[in-house]
Amino acid sequence: MTWKPITSPILDTLLDKVQFNEQGLISAIAQDEAGHVLMLAWMNRDALAETLKTGRVCYYSRSRNKLWRKGESSGQEQHLLAASLDCDADCLLLTVQQKGVACHTGRRSCFYQALTPSGITNLTEPDIRPETLYGEKVSS
Amino acid sequence: MTWKPITSPILDTLLDKVQFNEQGLISAIAQDEAGHVLMLAWMNRDALAETLKTGRVCYYSRSRNKLWRKGESSGQEQHLLAASLDCDADCLLLTVQQKGVACHTGRRSCFYQALTPSGITNLTEPDIRPETLYGEKVSS
Repeated sequence: MTWKPITSPILDTLLDKVQFNEQGLISAIAQDEAGHVLMLAWMNRDALAETLKTGRVCYYSRSRNKLWRKGESSGQEQHLLAASLDCDADCLLLTVQQKGVACHTGRRSCFYQALTPSGITNLTEPDIRPETLYGEKVSS
Repeated sequence: MTWKPITSPILDTLLDKVQFNEQGLISAIAQDEAGHVLMLAWMNRDALAETLKTGRVCYYSRSRNKLWRKGESSGQEQHLLAASLDCDADCLLLTVQQKGVACHTGRRSCFYQALTPSGITNLTEPDIRPETLYGEKVSS
């Protein structure tokens, strides 16, 4: 399964169907080839267009207010395999080939904090130290 | 796997750790036991508290501005099996036992609109007619 680029004019028609929210964003769930959910992030129209054209997953960073080509700092890139919209066209499900780990804590998946009757339990430990991914300035 | 209810005071401690957005909401991804992603919806503090206490999944409907006990109209209930928070504590991943279909169009999953170079392709057809789920007034 490799990504077949989507280009204009079909790309523009698809983008016009997407229901971006009042901030111009849509949520995007990323799962790996095995169907394990890795993370949720956001895309604006430009990020989604770039992702669908290139197959390299690009989000929109709400904290940095700019396009965020996943892996640009950490090397942990996501390459798109499939993408689908939900019934309301306001959420995306991306199937990606995840290089290394998706989570900035060094874990494969961001969803590692299990809610249990005794509190939060970490389901996994980091595969990679965050300092290895981002340099010594960033902590977990 | 059955849900072990989370009750106070642990419940309150957990809820205090959740990063609800400026509307007081958190996004929640629901997947089934096989890991298939079914839908994304939103919860406020009350919806999440009820879900964790009872194991019956309750969202917050942004269009109706009220708690939405999944399946209350359609009978297509979700029973919680596991729940985890992501690294930023601003998104939930729920593993649920889905009774019937999750999508209001009568499909098992809401993510049925594949994005392809030739446009949107429906990945699945409805398992149930929406009119059967909601009565004749609602169309797909």
